[in-house]
Amino acid sequence: MLFIGVIPRPQLDPQSEVPLYHQLCRHFTELIRSGSLKHGERLPPTRELAGLLGLNRTTVSAAYERLESDGLITGHVGRGSFVTGGEAAPAAGLNWDAILDASHAASAPESLKAGAGTISFAVSRPSEELFPLNDFRASCDAVMAGPDFASVLQLGSPGGYEPLRQYLIEESRQEGVLRPTDDLLITSGCQQALDLVRRVLVQPADKVLVEEPVYSGLKNLFLESGADLTGIPVHANGVDAAQIERATLKARFKALVVTPNFQNPTGATLGREDREAIVRVAHNAGTVVIENDIYGPLRYEGESLPTIKQLDETGDGILLRSFSKISFPGLRVGWAIGPRAFIARMMEAKQLSDLHSDQLSQATLLHFAKSGGLEAHHARILRAGAERLKAAIAACGRYLPAGTRFTRPRGGMNLWVRLPSPLDAGELLPRAHREGVSYLPGKYFAITRPETGSLRLSFAGVDPAHIDRGVKILGEIFSTEWERQLTSRNREPAPAMV
Amino acid sequence: MLFIGVIPRPQLDPQSEVPLYHQLCRHFTELIRSGSLKHGERLPPTRELAGLLGLNRTTVSAAYERLESDGLITGHVGRGSFVTGGEAAPAAGLNWDAILDASHAASAPESLKAGAGTISFAVSRPSEELFPLNDFRASCDAVMAGPDFASVLQLGSPGGYEPLRQYLIEESRQEGVLRPTDDLLITSGCQQALDLVRRVLVQPADKVLVEEPVYSGLKNLFLESGADLTGIPVHANGVDAAQIERATLKARFKALVVTPNFQNPTGATLGREDREAIVRVAHNAGTVVIENDIYGPLRYEGESLPTIKQLDETGDGILLRSFSKISFPGLRVGWAIGPRAFIARMMEAKQLSDLHSDQLSQATLLHFAKSGGLEAHHARILRAGAERLKAAIAACGRYLPAGTRFTRPRGGMNLWVRLPSPLDAGELLPRAHREGVSYLPGKYFAITRPETGSLRLSFAGVDPAHIDRGVKILGEIFSTEWERQLTSRNREPAPAMV
Repeated sequence: MLFIGVIPRPQLDPQSEVPLYHQLCRHFTELIRSGSLKHGERLPPTRELAGLLGLNRTTVSAAYERLESDGLITGHVGRGSFVTGGEAAPAAGLNWDAILDASHAASAPESLKAGAGTISFAVSRPSEELFPLNDFRASCDAVMAGPDFASVLQLGSPGGYEPLRQYLIEESRQEGVLRPTDDLLITSGCQQALDLVRRVLVQPADKVLVEEPVYSGLKNLFLESGADLTGIPVHANGVDAAQIERATLKARFKALVVTPNFQNPTGATLGREDREAIVRVAHNAGTVVIENDIYGPLRYEGESLPTIKQLDETGDGILLRSFSKISFPGLRVGWAIGPRAFIARMMEAKQLSDLHSDQLSQATLLHFAKSGGLEAHHARILRAGAERLKAAIAACGRYLPAGTRFTRPRGGMNLWVRLPSPLDAGELLPRAHREGVSYLPGKYFAITRPETGSLRLSFAGVDPAHIDRGVKILGEIFSTEWERQLTSRNREPAPAMV
Repeated sequence: MLFIGVIPRPQLDPQSEVPLYHQLCRHFTELIRSGSLKHGERLPPTRELAGLLGLNRTTVSAAYERLESDGLITGHVGRGSFVTGGEAAPAAGLNWDAILDASHAASAPESLKAGAGTISFAVSRPSEELFPLNDFRASCDAVMAGPDFASVLQLGSPGGYEPLRQYLIEESRQEGVLRPTDDLLITSGCQQALDLVRRVLVQPADKVLVEEPVYSGLKNLFLESGADLTGIPVHANGVDAAQIERATLKARFKALVVTPNFQNPTGATLGREDREAIVRVAHNAGTVVIENDIYGPLRYEGESLPTIKQLDETGDGILLRSFSKISFPGLRVGWAIGPRAFIARMMEAKQLSDLHSDQLSQATLLHFAKSGGLEAHHARILRAGAERLKAAIAACGRYLPAGTRFTRPRGGMNLWVRLPSPLDAGELLPRAHREGVSYLPGKYFAITRPETGSLRLSFAGVDPAHIDRGVKILGEIFSTEWERQLTSRNREPAPAMV
């Protein structure tokens, strides 16, 4: 290596696309960062260095200016330029703020961070006291004692653990939701099924129809991919097919994501006619229907309705289901059913995502289902869910302030509560936390119409006594605030007419 | 509803952005598809319908023409238009070819589909005969008997099962790869870690540096996100830092993905000086280094080298690791270590991907690690791996045709074999399959320089006797073909000089 004084001579390439001053700047940056040029050392004067390297002096000056603006050297008039960065300075890293684009996820709501002792209505999940731990252990032990156990622990297939996949295919065929033209893919829960659908289907700026209010994990997922979301309001009977049709007449929508049963967050369920209408409308518009049926098996009252996929004679529908809500959310096993070509592409996306889903859980859930453990547990959580739903509806009626409206679902895990104006569910949440109760405010579920007066009450994970106690506490907070606001408003002097 | 004869009258909106002929066309499409207008029924004459609806006759004609081109009606001169689509015709579905964009994944190579009885060098995975099933059962039973087992089955946290996360943080800190400014996220294997890094970091058209040849699951993942990949050739000692530097001087690269130890597919390992040079080069270029260290713990000979992350004083490096290759690939548990801000964003992406990783596997692997089962297994697979590596190198030297070159890694699961020209490893694969041996041809690992004469030999899943037998079979196939080509070339008449 050649040197200029104590400094290694740079290898400059006048033919390069990189300007000479930039090459020179990089050379000094590296010398300083690597410690070859130390804090306090003097750089050669620009005129001298230009002469030595056969460069124009302005080239050297430009390099020094850049080094100075990078904080690596400081120029002193009449004395020259000195290293000020490097070893003595803390190691300067990447500018992560500039590298990382804006986040698509709202920061985790406080209600998910509420401490112990809390009555949490904030998470849509089953109750762990109801988990049949002995049945689960028996299934897992049977898998571990089985002749194929080593293959369960070996690298698997993107489509899923094949014995479970075949079992789900057969069950779905018998139920009538899987046609001869369909295939089935196992995913890491419904969330991953949605993610894979999005990866296969949605390009940036594609228009997608979703329900509003809607589960934030669905909204953020599509926003992350740059989709243009349109929210269709959810009423007591789910989204309105006529509104979907009006939207499709105005623009071309790539997909419609719909939760037909006990929608999250409203608990609303689509009637049969609306399901049929959605099939027609989507068909006419060339829109793919993604049916997120995660809550379907949690019907506590009334008759089950056919899935949208069953009603669609073309076989084009995509149906997403999961074991999470009816068994153990800590095991991530869901599945997607759809036309072969579509499922084949989801399998490719699955392979790129995580190769395949965990096989110990798949094998254990298969045994749990085949042994009858799942059915017995399902019956138990339907009974418990019915009690909890009843307790939640009764408590809302008894304790929430006059003027409050809330949905009356017949299954699922969630009620949607609309407080009387001008109450703000987000503003009141810290007060609820102080009293040991949590919920999710309506704003987390908005596409374009934040319902500040609304909140989601997830009742399935809380026993009836705690539901009563928790809603009573909320009722007191909301009523007190409502009366306070009413009083202060009445006291306000009437404004002058202008 | 009003009717025109037997046909429900359309509700047309002259104010709409949708042209009237299109509205009319949709109306009839729906009537036909829903069966309200049946196969063989006659549509009103255009003049009559125009009069009834107050429309221009050309509007009605345009709607009928569209219906005809959609295959729903057929016009007969002098007789009118008749429904030909609808109930009697098969249900017409979506055009999936048009909806689904081109696949980024090469279709699964035949070598992964090879039948039973095959000696498979095609998959980079451990040998399942070596799995310590009893130790694993003991760990899983301990987890299932533990006081916190219900919480293992309950919904978890995006960052991972917290006791495992804390264990890995402590282990990584002691090893010196996790700094006080770092955090750690559990992923579903290294594949998902790569996917989450990509989601957080790479936007379409971003430039990314990768090794070439490179694991196809890495290449396809970045291609899926629209990244512009540049491959840096891998030599016997890994990628050349000087070539990385030249690339960064010509363009701005968002990230560099590098596998420092026993790279897939070549088995090459980066020396310490190259690791240090990569830190410097990436730092100067503002490029994020993603260090995929999945094979690091599988060193059969020589001394371990510090990770690139350890050498980077700025703390900016991202390090990916996994339990898959050193324990059970069927359980998907890997992790990423990096600056807090980056890991926080990966956790958001993880939540959108699949909420969190499977907790039964996380809890069981934690017990397996803490109980010493992992360490004992690790020692066992290092001994087995050393034998297999030795067998593979010996067999390649003994059986492959003269002029073949192959890498001599000191760990990992893969050798890279370059056959003498003009042999084509892809063309010869079907012949190898017929003889009961499989491998992956070089083309699957290319960015822009497909090595048709190369192949990856994954030796870790095959015992030494089968390695010898399998490579012997390959050697015979390759040698026979090479001699045949040589002979036929020598027989070709010399071309005239022109």
